Amino acid sequence: MNARSAVPRIWESQRLDRRRRLERAATRLGNCVAGKVVDGSAIVGLLETVIEPGDRVCLEGNNQKQADFLAKALVRVNPALVHDLHMVQSVLALPEHLEIFEKGIATRLDFSFSGPQSARLARLVAERRIAIGAIHTYLELFSRYFIDLTPAVSLVAAQSADASGNLYTGPNTEDTPVIVEATAFKAGIVVAQVNEIVDVLPRVDIPADWVSFVVQSPKPHAIEPLFTRDPARISEIQVLMAMMAIKGIYAEYGVQRLNHGIGFDTAAIELLLPTYAESLGLKGKICKHWALNPHPALIPAIEGGFVESIYSFGSELGMEKYIAARSDIFFTGPDGSLRSNRAFCQTAGHYACDLFIGSTLQIDLAGNSSTATVGRIAGFGGAPNMGSDARGRRHATGAWLQAGRETEVTYSGPCRAGASWSSRSWKRSASTCSRLLSRSSMPGRWPRARTCRYHR
Amino acid sequence: MNARSAVPRIWESQRLDRRRRLERAATRLGNCVAGKVVDGSAIVGLLETVIEPGDRVCLEGNNQKQADFLAKALVRVNPALVHDLHMVQSVLALPEHLEIFEKGIATRLDFSFSGPQSARLARLVAERRIAIGAIHTYLELFSRYFIDLTPAVSLVAAQSADASGNLYTGPNTEDTPVIVEATAFKAGIVVAQVNEIVDVLPRVDIPADWVSFVVQSPKPHAIEPLFTRDPARISEIQVLMAMMAIKGIYAEYGVQRLNHGIGFDTAAIELLLPTYAESLGLKGKICKHWALNPHPALIPAIEGGFVESIYSFGSELGMEKYIAARSDIFFTGPDGSLRSNRAFCQTAGHYACDLFIGSTLQIDLAGNSSTATVGRIAGFGGAPNMGSDARGRRHATGAWLQAGRETEVTYSGPCRAGASWSSRSWKRSASTCSRLLSRSSMPGRWPRARTCRYHR
Repeated sequence: MNARSAVPRIWESQRLDRRRRLERAATRLGNCVAGKVVDGSAIVGLLETVIEPGDRVCLEGNNQKQADFLAKALVRVNPALVHDLHMVQSVLALPEHLEIFEKGIATRLDFSFSGPQSARLARLVAERRIAIGAIHTYLELFSRYFIDLTPAVSLVAAQSADASGNLYTGPNTEDTPVIVEATAFKAGIVVAQVNEIVDVLPRVDIPADWVSFVVQSPKPHAIEPLFTRDPARISEIQVLMAMMAIKGIYAEYGVQRLNHGIGFDTAAIELLLPTYAESLGLKGKICKHWALNPHPALIPAIEGGFVESIYSFGSELGMEKYIAARSDIFFTGPDGSLRSNRAFCQTAGHYACDLFIGSTLQIDLAGNSSTATVGRIAGFGGAPNMGSDARGRRHATGAWLQAGRETEVTYSGPCRAGASWSSRSWKRSASTCSRLLSRSSMPGRWPRARTCRYHR
Repeated sequence: MNARSAVPRIWESQRLDRRRRLERAATRLGNCVAGKVVDGSAIVGLLETVIEPGDRVCLEGNNQKQADFLAKALVRVNPALVHDLHMVQSVLALPEHLEIFEKGIATRLDFSFSGPQSARLARLVAERRIAIGAIHTYLELFSRYFIDLTPAVSLVAAQSADASGNLYTGPNTEDTPVIVEATAFKAGIVVAQVNEIVDVLPRVDIPADWVSFVVQSPKPHAIEPLFTRDPARISEIQVLMAMMAIKGIYAEYGVQRLNHGIGFDTAAIELLLPTYAESLGLKGKICKHWALNPHPALIPAIEGGFVESIYSFGSELGMEKYIAARSDIFFTGPDGSLRSNRAFCQTAGHYACDLFIGSTLQIDLAGNSSTATVGRIAGFGGAPNMGSDARGRRHATGAWLQAGRETEVTYSGPCRAGASWSSRSWKRSASTCSRLLSRSSMPGRWPRARTCRYHR
C-alpha cells in the first residue's frame, strides 16, 4: 500500500451519492413507493434511508406554511441512524423543530426566525444542545443555500402533486421554489408532503424534475393565519398613531411603494387609507404598490382605489375568493389563485420599496435594536432586508430623494448633486415613528439596518 | 348620461385583456399557431397582435444570452400599431435594442447595462429619443418587476420547448425564470424563442403554464462567450497584480466566498491559485465558494482542489463537458448540464459573498465611481449588488469580521462588541486594490457601494 499512489479523485460523488440514496430508498420501501409517490406509512423509513448523519437538512417552514408531517416524521427517525444534522431553515416554529435537537437527531442550526419557540431555543442554546451558526434574514439564508449552506436533503410542503411529482404550491408558494432549486440542482434529495395527489394540477409551480419524492400527508399541512385579526381590537391610540404616520410620514414623503409589518398598528394605517388619508387628498399619491401578504385590513384601501398592486411573500387564509375576484391587484396564476414567492418578495422589499415599518424586542437610544435577549432568541425573518438601506440601489423615487436630502451624509464627492444616495434617514424616520408609537411587540421585526447580531 | 352614476369597477381587466390578446392572436395567426407553438414566419404578426401601445415590454438579454430573433422581429413591427413601448430589460446589447427607439416603437427605458451600445445610447438620450427611467443593478430591476415595473409582455429565449410549451433553458437559464414569473403571474404574455422543439425535454426549467407562446428561431439564439480568453495574453503586470491580491488581500482576510469580475486581472488570480497561492499554504483557506460563471480560468484551481462549489449567473460556451464531468463543483440538473439563475446568483453575491473585484469607467479620489460619462452610458449590471455592503446581512465570517474591525464605524451603541457589522472597508480594500492595479477597463462594473446615479 503506497499512500502516495495517485488515487483519481471522483468528481461526481454527490450525484453518485444521490443515486445510492435513491436506490436504497427503492429497496427499503419496496411496495410503499411507486415512481416518486411514497406511502405515508413509510415516511420515517424514507427519511432514515435518504438522510445521512451530518447532512445539511432544510425543513420547510416560515411564519405561515409548515412541512409539519415531515417534521413529525423527522422526530421519529432512529437517532442511531440519523444524527448530527445541520438544520438550515427559515424558522423554528413547531415543537418538532426543537425536539430533533433534544433527541440528538440534529445538533447545528442556521435559521432566520423562531418566534413561537424563542424561549425554548434560548434554553437549548444555554444547555449547549444547539450550536447556532447565525440568525439570518430570509434572503440572506436563501443566498447561502447557493454558496456554503446548500441542503443535502430538503423536506418541503405543497398543496398537491400529480403522479409524476409536479407540485402545485397554490397561494402559499412562499419559500418552496428557492429551497427546491438549491437542493435539486446540487444533487440533493427533495421530499414534498402534499395535501392531495391529483390527476391534473391547477398549475405547475415546481416541475417534477426537481422533486425526488412526494408523500400525501394524512391531513393538510399546517398554515398560520397571520393577518386576520378583529379590527374592533384596534385601540384609539393605534388609530391616532396611524393618523400621525399617514400625515407625518406617508404624505410628507409621498411614499408609494412599501411593506408593513404584522399587527394592529399597521392594520390601523391600512384601514384609515380610504377615510382619513383620502380626506387629506392622498389617493393616488401614497401606498400604491405593496410588497405584502394579502391582509384583510387592506380590503377597504383596495376597494377605495388606493392600491394598484400587491406582491406577496405568502398568502392569507380566507382571502382566496377575494384575491381571485381582484386579480388586477394581486399576482395570480392561470387558476386564479395567488402566486407568492418569499425570495422574490424579500428582494422586492429590499430593492424596490421606500418604506418599512416593524417593531423589535429591544432598542437603545441610538436606535440599534435586537431580537436576541438573555431568555429569548427570536430572530428577525425579513425585516433587515426590508428595513435596511439597499446599498446596491440606484433608481430614484421622490420619497427616496427627499429622505436623502435630509440625511446627513458624510460624503463630499462630486456626484452628490443634491440628491442623496441614501434612504437611511427616511427609513429611520419611519421606523422611529413606528417604534415611538408602538405599544405591541412584534418579535422578529427589525426596524433598523444597524442591529446587534447574535454570535455563537 | 349621468357622469355620477356608479359604474362598477372591473377588477379583472388584466386577465380579460390577456384573454383578448390571446384570442386576437389565434384569429390573426390562424394556421400559423398550433396550441402555443407559433410558426416563425408569423412572429411579427404575433408581436403586433399581443403588444399594445404603451406596454411595458421586457426583451430578454444580458451579457450572454439574447432573445435576438424576437428582437429582430420587434424592430419589424409597424410603428403605427406598436409604439411608445416602455422597455424594462437587463441590457442594451444588440443594435436592435436601440433601433426600436430610433423607429419610435419604444420611447422609455429602464435597464441595467449597455456595454456594447453605450455610446449610441448616450447619443439617443442627447437627442431625446430615449427617456431613461433609471440604470439599475440586475437584482434591483428584477425587484421592480414585482412592484412598479411589471412587464405586460416578455420576450425570452430558451434552448428548447416541447409541444405543450414547457421550456428547457439549459446551462444558460440566466434571467429567464424571474422575468417569466413576474410576467406570467400578473396576466402578462410570455413569448419564448427556442432553438428547437422536441418531444421530451432534458429537464423542465420553466413550466408550460407560465408560457403563452413558443416559436422556433431559424437559428440558435445569440450567446456571448464572456470569459473564454487566451491566457497567453495575460501580462506580467497582471501576474504581479494577481500575486499582490492573493498575498495582500485573499490571504490576509481569509476570503473563502467571492465573486470576480470579467477580465485578465481576475483570470490571473484564478490561474495562480494552484501554484502561487498553494505555495503560500492557502489551499483550503481561500477561494472555496464562488458566485461566478464557469470561467475556464478556474479549471486549474478546481483540479488543484481549491474550489468547493461554484454557483453561476449564466454559463460559458465550451465548458459544457467539463461542467458535466465536475458536477461536485457546479450546480447541475438531472441531465448533467449547468443550472444557472441570475436572480439567485446576484442575491448570493449580495448576501453570501465577502469579496468582489471589478472595475469602472471613472473614479474620484474618494473612491466614488461612475459608468455614465458624457459620451457613454454603460450601466453596471450586477456590480453594485456584489460590491455593496449588504446592510441586511447578519451572519459573520472571518473575512467579514476582520474587515469590520478595521472599519471606522461612526457608531457607539452597546451592540458593537468588538465585531463590526460592516464589511464595507473590506470590500473597499479589495476594490481599491483592483482599481489601483487595474489596467483594463471593464465597463459596467462598480467597485464601490457609493456611486453616482445617472438621472433622467
